[in-house]
Amino acid sequence: MSGDEQAVIDRFFRHLGAVRTDVVLGIGDDGALLRTLPGCELVQTIDALVEGVHFLPGSRPRSLGHRALAINLSDIAAMGATPAWALLALTLPEIDLAWLGEFATGFGSLARTHDVALVGGNLSRGPLSVTVQLTGQVAAGTALRRSGARAGDEIWVSGTLGDAALGRSAAAGAGGAAAEWLCARYEYPTPRVALGEALRGIASACIDLSDGLLADLPRLAASSECGALLQVEQLPLSPALGALAGDLAWQQALAGGEDYELCVAAPPARAADLQALAARLAVPLQRCGALRSAPGLELQRSGTVIQFSQSPFDHFAVRPRA
Amino acid sequence: MSGDEQAVIDRFFRHLGAVRTDVVLGIGDDGALLRTLPGCELVQTIDALVEGVHFLPGSRPRSLGHRALAINLSDIAAMGATPAWALLALTLPEIDLAWLGEFATGFGSLARTHDVALVGGNLSRGPLSVTVQLTGQVAAGTALRRSGARAGDEIWVSGTLGDAALGRSAAAGAGGAAAEWLCARYEYPTPRVALGEALRGIASACIDLSDGLLADLPRLAASSECGALLQVEQLPLSPALGALAGDLAWQQALAGGEDYELCVAAPPARAADLQALAARLAVPLQRCGALRSAPGLELQRSGTVIQFSQSPFDHFAVRPRA
Repeated sequence: MSGDEQAVIDRFFRHLGAVRTDVVLGIGDDGALLRTLPGCELVQTIDALVEGVHFLPGSRPRSLGHRALAINLSDIAAMGATPAWALLALTLPEIDLAWLGEFATGFGSLARTHDVALVGGNLSRGPLSVTVQLTGQVAAGTALRRSGARAGDEIWVSGTLGDAALGRSAAAGAGGAAAEWLCARYEYPTPRVALGEALRGIASACIDLSDGLLADLPRLAASSECGALLQVEQLPLSPALGALAGDLAWQQALAGGEDYELCVAAPPARAADLQALAARLAVPLQRCGALRSAPGLELQRSGTVIQFSQSPFDHFAVRPRA
Repeated sequence: MSGDEQAVIDRFFRHLGAVRTDVVLGIGDDGALLRTLPGCELVQTIDALVEGVHFLPGSRPRSLGHRALAINLSDIAAMGATPAWALLALTLPEIDLAWLGEFATGFGSLARTHDVALVGGNLSRGPLSVTVQLTGQVAAGTALRRSGARAGDEIWVSGTLGDAALGRSAAAGAGGAAAEWLCARYEYPTPRVALGEALRGIASACIDLSDGLLADLPRLAASSECGALLQVEQLPLSPALGALAGDLAWQQALAGGEDYELCVAAPPARAADLQALAARLAVPLQRCGALRSAPGLELQRSGTVIQFSQSPFDHFAVRPRA
């Protein structure tokens, strides 16, 4: 590591994020030293954002800092765990102090919101990419998994779907209040950490929606050895998505990806609990389908079964209900 | 994630590394679930290898898999901890099954040697880079740090120094047994995990030698609010380095980097303990200097103080002892 890199770490990262009393030793030694909670298990995840693959060249650094942490927080949320410590591997083509300041602001602000300490990292020269590893804790035996659901459980999703996918296009395109709102949904996703924690003991299974419901729900269903039925007209859509996407809004909601909302399975008897929880946390939760024993995913819209190809990015076709 | 990427994970990574009973849930959900040891603290580190920066295009994938884990194991060793769980973020320009097989062999073999489970990861398309995050455990309050040494403590180093730096050049150059041995020292470094664990209670401070003694010893000394004096003729040099580098061997040993040996500080009264430990573990440990209250690093060779510039890669000059 050069003196330059050390100076960057000292200036932008040494004290970024929350101050936690369980951090015995943070950035500055060969490793961080962390004190765990008794009776808890660790939850660990890692995710990377690569320029030209996960974001366009010229993307706002504040958004990148936020998103790189948010996508990991969303994984921790889907397990029902409480986030604690992050490590950051940042590869940069050059040291750009303004860029680093904005990036650190985006990362640090979200980290403090969720009481996450940045306890270690790695700074390299190279093509721009951001890799974050996050560790959370959860009472032993209580973590949510993809695999706990059974046929008959209902499917719920948080927030609204499809905003990020349209916002990603809007980020480079048209203006207006709706486009700006969608763009913010893409650039600054809201990981559903408090919801995930509250779902323990209620949900039978959970997954976060990073690739879109059409890709992620079948993963939950298959892990639970079920199939699923989705009622397309019950998908939660934002007014902004409706205004800009019109009749295609439901396709964005199904296949768009990068919403980082939670997809939750729960027995019908827990519906009132879920509604109470949504009200208490002020996070929308909408029921839009159910698991069933027949494998695969069936979509219904206005009483019609919708046929779709394997790739969520291919076109959709409609055929009469079988 | 595409079906291709899922197939790659299933084929090469899902069961890579050691099988550990404390892994409640490994690869395949939104996060891994891990059971910690009571009375222990976590040690966490992250390191990246970027093509064109940390390794040349065309580098052997088996070596990359080994090195990406080894450099993290070395950090865990320097803290005196026992490694446990790794996460891998791999960015590849294309899916090359032969490359992936070799990479997984290099990573997996070293992981099994050190009882490390691969519990999560991320696969992206993009410029080749390998980021590994590793978590270890250590009895609370016993971790080694850079900061625990005091003036009068002696400096010891494990193994031999400078081999990797010359081996890195040899990898692209001349043949012969000595060059091959040096090349292997670069491509397959030996993290000193058992040594690090055994140093707890004996060493006063420890750091791993990733950037070379000339860069890393001052970090240990400064963290311990000391300076250091090194006896250059006492640096441990391999016969292969001596054969190929001749009179410049000690410069390689000082400034070369990437040896991933440990640099240890300990009170003179612990010298016999260190020698016994070296014999028991069959890891060479050589005393080559001491910490002192005067700040900075002084090098001596044959009773002469050696002057050197700030950059370890600049030339060395010799001046009479002050």
